Amino acid sequence: MKLAIGVDIGGTNTRAGIVSTDGEVLSSTEFRTGHYESGLDFADRLSNTILELKDNFEASNESCVWSGLGIGAPNGNHLTGCIEEPPNLRFKGTTPIVQLLEERLDFARIEMTNDANAAAIGEKRFGAAKEYADFIMITLGTGLGSGIFVNNQLVYGHDGFAGELGHVSVIPDGRYCGFGRRGSLENYCSATGIRRTFLEMIAQKGESTALDDRPLREISAKTIAEAAYDGDPIAVATMDFTGRLLGEALASTALITSPAAFFLFGGPVQAGDILLEPTRRSFEKHLIPTFKNKIKIIESGLAMGDAAIIGAAALVTP
Amino acid sequence: MKLAIGVDIGGTNTRAGIVSTDGEVLSSTEFRTGHYESGLDFADRLSNTILELKDNFEASNESCVWSGLGIGAPNGNHLTGCIEEPPNLRFKGTTPIVQLLEERLDFARIEMTNDANAAAIGEKRFGAAKEYADFIMITLGTGLGSGIFVNNQLVYGHDGFAGELGHVSVIPDGRYCGFGRRGSLENYCSATGIRRTFLEMIAQKGESTALDDRPLREISAKTIAEAAYDGDPIAVATMDFTGRLLGEALASTALITSPAAFFLFGGPVQAGDILLEPTRRSFEKHLIPTFKNKIKIIESGLAMGDAAIIGAAALVTP
Repeated sequence: MKLAIGVDIGGTNTRAGIVSTDGEVLSSTEFRTGHYESGLDFADRLSNTILELKDNFEASNESCVWSGLGIGAPNGNHLTGCIEEPPNLRFKGTTPIVQLLEERLDFARIEMTNDANAAAIGEKRFGAAKEYADFIMITLGTGLGSGIFVNNQLVYGHDGFAGELGHVSVIPDGRYCGFGRRGSLENYCSATGIRRTFLEMIAQKGESTALDDRPLREISAKTIAEAAYDGDPIAVATMDFTGRLLGEALASTALITSPAAFFLFGGPVQAGDILLEPTRRSFEKHLIPTFKNKIKIIESGLAMGDAAIIGAAALVTP
Repeated sequence: MKLAIGVDIGGTNTRAGIVSTDGEVLSSTEFRTGHYESGLDFADRLSNTILELKDNFEASNESCVWSGLGIGAPNGNHLTGCIEEPPNLRFKGTTPIVQLLEERLDFARIEMTNDANAAAIGEKRFGAAKEYADFIMITLGTGLGSGIFVNNQLVYGHDGFAGELGHVSVIPDGRYCGFGRRGSLENYCSATGIRRTFLEMIAQKGESTALDDRPLREISAKTIAEAAYDGDPIAVATMDFTGRLLGEALASTALITSPAAFFLFGGPVQAGDILLEPTRRSFEKHLIPTFKNKIKIIESGLAMGDAAIIGAAALVTP
């Protein structure tokens, strides 16, 4: 039985899973990333977790053949094997995670890329992008990530950090991001951005909403999408505004690499047409004639829960 | 002697030249594109011009070996060999120019791409980009074009039209372009855009400029750059505004494909640091930390006059 291990390092939790060659997660485990202040301690814990997962699986499954270990991590650099200046992890600076794991584990291949790139590779290998040579994966979550395929290859760029679509400017002098920069896409179209828009719209319109009895903490892209689905006007306006900005940004991106499709992944996408319809309308509006009515905007074919692990495993699945 | 023919189809003139394998134009000729209303008539004229150029050259040079014919054209599609919906040519619709020339001429290879892609290929083959695997060529002229290299390959995208950076939105609800779209980069940072900014600044500030005695027709990116060089405040402010917007747009583009350098080509670039300095400052300001102080913005290494022909020839230079 041919297998790979996929690891998703997130700001809150780190999950590791055993993935079959057809993209099924056969066993998985997780621990809290936030407990670790040093990359070294984290690497110790991660390698122990992987060994345990692997040993337990081999105990009840015969003739396992391991193709390798793939990792998706915030600011994970495929070219250097390092996590560099991660915005959401407690261990700062540069952590040579691939080297640290190579010293602790015995896999033929250990590879890492960032989380959105891992999702793109997963979509290409196991999801809805199998037939696409040129496509862009967009992950909407706390942030907004992207992974870009050109001519059947993931674009890494000269230093391994290509695909930072979330940080592209969309509104000059707009909302602040964590870096002190202003008006970038993820401030508007990530799950966090959708929440900010909803609160801003209440502030501007001074109207009541269907979510007024919910604690502020529960106002999220998910609850806003549900309220929009039920017809709440401010929630609908929020999804419409989000779609219009996202569509314009995807159009600008399409003009650069000319993908055949965008695949959207993440919580906000579950709002379905309430988000996708204004996105597609704005997208077409902002294209030039030679690009119109050619490029699809599609929901990801990856299952929400396991996508990050599957994508990471796809890095080393032959 | 190994040779290629390069053709630059422009809105006003079409130029054809014989190019050596080290990128030197050995002989060239031109005729007015604007005379031709049909692609068929144009193809007849172009093939006659090429035959004449080639015959004349062979008459005085022994043992010429022709590697092929390369063409740069507005909306020239490398994948289909067609000029599709060109905005500035009199023959509209789709013209299968490669096929028409194959029927009329006897070259082993005839290839076409758009003018900015041809310039990028020329920069890679003969200019300042030889050592760069990931770079972006920006051509500033009547419009703003771009050609993108990723991993030593020009990016064509799924339908051959990648690299339309000039049409990316930079100011929501900004200036109109010929397609009725608003706020796209080339309305601000092309030579034409610089002229529009200068006139707008006079309108807003109501001040006199160093160009007040020149006929309106002579107000151009070139004369404005000259006035800026001599210290005219409105001309300086125009170049500053242009650089700030261009730098922001290049930063957004860098975040997507992560090039090691941008090469700027065209008339406005001759303004030198008056344009490049605010461009670089704005570029760095709009990057996230992992991208800062890594990516160069450099003047093109191609000679202004011959770049388009050299780039087109590079398409078929082995």
